[in-house]
Amino acid sequence: MTSRSENYSQWYNDLVVKADLAESSVVRGCMVIKPYGYAIWEKMQAELDRMFKETGHVNAYFPLFIPKSFFSKEAAHVEGFAKECAVVTHYRLKTNPDGTGVVVDPEAKLDEELIVRPTSETIIWNTYKNWIHSYRDLPILCNQWANVVRWEMRTRLFLRTAEFLWQEGHTAHATRQEALDEAMKMINVYADFVENFMAVPVIKGAKTENERFAGALETFTIEALMQDGKALQSGTSHFLGQNFARAFDVMFTNKEGRDEYVWATSWGVSTRLMGALIMAHSDDNGLVLPPKLAPFQVVIVPIYKNEEQLNNISVKAEEIVARLKARGISVKYDYFDNKKPGWKFAEYELKGVPVRLAIGPRDIENGTVEVARRDTLTKEVAPVATIDVYVEKLLDDIQKNIYRKAFELRKDKTTKVDTYEEFKEVLNTKGGFVLAHWDGTTETELKIKEETKATIRCIPFGQEKEEGKCIYSGKPSERRVLFAVAY
Amino acid sequence: MTSRSENYSQWYNDLVVKADLAESSVVRGCMVIKPYGYAIWEKMQAELDRMFKETGHVNAYFPLFIPKSFFSKEAAHVEGFAKECAVVTHYRLKTNPDGTGVVVDPEAKLDEELIVRPTSETIIWNTYKNWIHSYRDLPILCNQWANVVRWEMRTRLFLRTAEFLWQEGHTAHATRQEALDEAMKMINVYADFVENFMAVPVIKGAKTENERFAGALETFTIEALMQDGKALQSGTSHFLGQNFARAFDVMFTNKEGRDEYVWATSWGVSTRLMGALIMAHSDDNGLVLPPKLAPFQVVIVPIYKNEEQLNNISVKAEEIVARLKARGISVKYDYFDNKKPGWKFAEYELKGVPVRLAIGPRDIENGTVEVARRDTLTKEVAPVATIDVYVEKLLDDIQKNIYRKAFELRKDKTTKVDTYEEFKEVLNTKGGFVLAHWDGTTETELKIKEETKATIRCIPFGQEKEEGKCIYSGKPSERRVLFAVAY
Repeated sequence: MTSRSENYSQWYNDLVVKADLAESSVVRGCMVIKPYGYAIWEKMQAELDRMFKETGHVNAYFPLFIPKSFFSKEAAHVEGFAKECAVVTHYRLKTNPDGTGVVVDPEAKLDEELIVRPTSETIIWNTYKNWIHSYRDLPILCNQWANVVRWEMRTRLFLRTAEFLWQEGHTAHATRQEALDEAMKMINVYADFVENFMAVPVIKGAKTENERFAGALETFTIEALMQDGKALQSGTSHFLGQNFARAFDVMFTNKEGRDEYVWATSWGVSTRLMGALIMAHSDDNGLVLPPKLAPFQVVIVPIYKNEEQLNNISVKAEEIVARLKARGISVKYDYFDNKKPGWKFAEYELKGVPVRLAIGPRDIENGTVEVARRDTLTKEVAPVATIDVYVEKLLDDIQKNIYRKAFELRKDKTTKVDTYEEFKEVLNTKGGFVLAHWDGTTETELKIKEETKATIRCIPFGQEKEEGKCIYSGKPSERRVLFAVAY
Repeated sequence: MTSRSENYSQWYNDLVVKADLAESSVVRGCMVIKPYGYAIWEKMQAELDRMFKETGHVNAYFPLFIPKSFFSKEAAHVEGFAKECAVVTHYRLKTNPDGTGVVVDPEAKLDEELIVRPTSETIIWNTYKNWIHSYRDLPILCNQWANVVRWEMRTRLFLRTAEFLWQEGHTAHATRQEALDEAMKMINVYADFVENFMAVPVIKGAKTENERFAGALETFTIEALMQDGKALQSGTSHFLGQNFARAFDVMFTNKEGRDEYVWATSWGVSTRLMGALIMAHSDDNGLVLPPKLAPFQVVIVPIYKNEEQLNNISVKAEEIVARLKARGISVKYDYFDNKKPGWKFAEYELKGVPVRLAIGPRDIENGTVEVARRDTLTKEVAPVATIDVYVEKLLDDIQKNIYRKAFELRKDKTTKVDTYEEFKEVLNTKGGFVLAHWDGTTETELKIKEETKATIRCIPFGQEKEEGKCIYSGKPSERRVLFAVAY
């Protein structure tokens, strides 16, 4: 595997493939998510789904296809979304007259082309129109787990693929404030998930007008920092105002009997989070997974020379398996004899299994077990008698330590600058997040982007006001914004 | 709502829409699965997913799109699948030169059209080619939860839609026997799920050659009977032999060092099961849900005249909620005051909630609660003190009773016939399953279908041999097969 210092980008690709997370498919830009990668995604889904339900949301499912004309209904949305997408024009194939395979049947042309959803605001608001009549029908708090397609030209496994898996929440409200609160609530849910399950610290904030979702009045975001000093947008939540209600004519009768347009939000995270998880923690030996999202948290490897030894070790190992499971810890006992222990050690390191237990004949004699932790690559010998308690605490330590490491990295790579020279210098050397004053104009934002590739990741929440001067234009500014080169 | 006797088909459609399960969307043939319907589907998914994992399977995800040429690679498969499907021909839209919306960009034409997957054998076996080299790489036991599209001309909510949700298992094996065993194992898993969770009895068997999956050597099926006497194929499992391995050149080196083609199975159930669940049990008042799949199993409705009464009832109700939840029973306390109790009773009947508890002021005095069960529409008064135990047992009774009712119905509607006259008579009067002798030829099968619309649902497993004569041709037959008119 390529090392991070050698070529970070190549290291990432190697890791995704070698750790059996995903691979490119024969269809340009579409990936195959392999079982080990999918198992991590399932754990992420399960936690997020629980959090959505705990905050009052329900799941539903809307069509994969959207009529082309729907995209023209919301002016900003069509600019942002209806361009690079998969277009269905026909609904039938027929046998090639010359007998060689199949061809598209020209007779089976659709009257109106269908777009494979790049996001579902339009079809969902067209549906909500029939669901909403009175304030009594509100709020609607739906989420959908689905695949979406955006015809990206340059793709990277998990980070940017033509087809990806995601969830998209679409809510409808009677008041502006309620919708704003919902959008804020969901960015907090995302931050909670990414920090406490993925062990990745994030900065919450609002996007600038230029970086907003197509059709949104406000886009809230969580921004994470990868080890190479580039930012990764990890989740967004949009306050859509009444734009989609207007576009699809969705009105409700309020308590006073007057008709009003409905207020909307949408919010989503995707398999892109897999990219963030991989890049935030892993090292040159492979994946480092936070225990809360590892497909299995512990692996037990027997070290033996003959079958008798293996049998003795297996008795002990199965006992440990039972005790760990009783504490809700997932564990795999790898007794297969087709691979040497050394190979297994490397394999489970590559796969990021948080804790490895090794048991040899001497351990059986001494009532001990060798415990290796993936995050620090350190080993200790622990008594079997209390191994379940020991491992439970260790997993908790690992979860916290991974977060702490990522937090320290971000701290080291976050710099306040006051001049454009400093700004460029920091980007060219250490990279990372740069906090700087900005005059609030899209013009300046775009010029900085053009000259440095850095974008405004967000206007962070909860920052104290600070008078200053825009690093680019010198115009007055009231607060610093967060710049970075981003994925 | 239309009654079943009036118009069964209309009753079904009314029920699906009125019980908030699903509705048609603006995209022809595609449905919107509404939150209440999706909650049932999620319960089904959770149980099936658990069963798949318990039998050693893992989940993965493969691309939505399949290159057109893949369908031509397996001769039988192309006949069966590559015809009515959604074809992606372009990857970009552009603003209409006249400013009115968007048009397909003719410059953005794909070199090879992509088909939205109607099923994934081809793309998956093209992927397995790179995963499989030696017998050590086998078996591969992957399942995928996904959406698929088949351009059906006549669609019905859940039963036949252009887009539907399903799972598709795709396994790869070193031997013929192992693949056959896998296909059989999975049809048994499906039968177990449908009978024990959906409370729908099924008949397991093999499909005739004519009814097999396109590309399969054997198709196993579970067939259920609906209340109107029509059969519904509820799940299939296919032994694919080496057909897809040959088509995609997937070979492995066996233990003896020789190269062989890999053996395959595939198996799937879909949102069609929702149709089976609805049609098997429901009545003219609405849905009847088996407790094991109900989004909530118990609803509590307070009966009161003033706020003081409601407050007293709420104290008791919340106590009952806590006690039921402690037993793992899902329960909703509907204290909302915007609807009358009578409206709520009808609504929860329509939604098929298995048990309804009503509490009024007199119940508070007497320490009682009124218990209504949805399946029999009967009521009893039970003491609050032991209500948790009572409800737990009742839910179990309801689950069993629903199954028993469906089983009795099937028994009544299963007829053995020995002549073609009898056969037609039964189909025209009571309908249902008809067990009859058949000469084993596709010719006879198709003639019977043409003349009566009845198809051979399966050759049931575990039937004793019985000498007889084909009802149509009079030729000798060794066993009866199961005929029915099917959905």
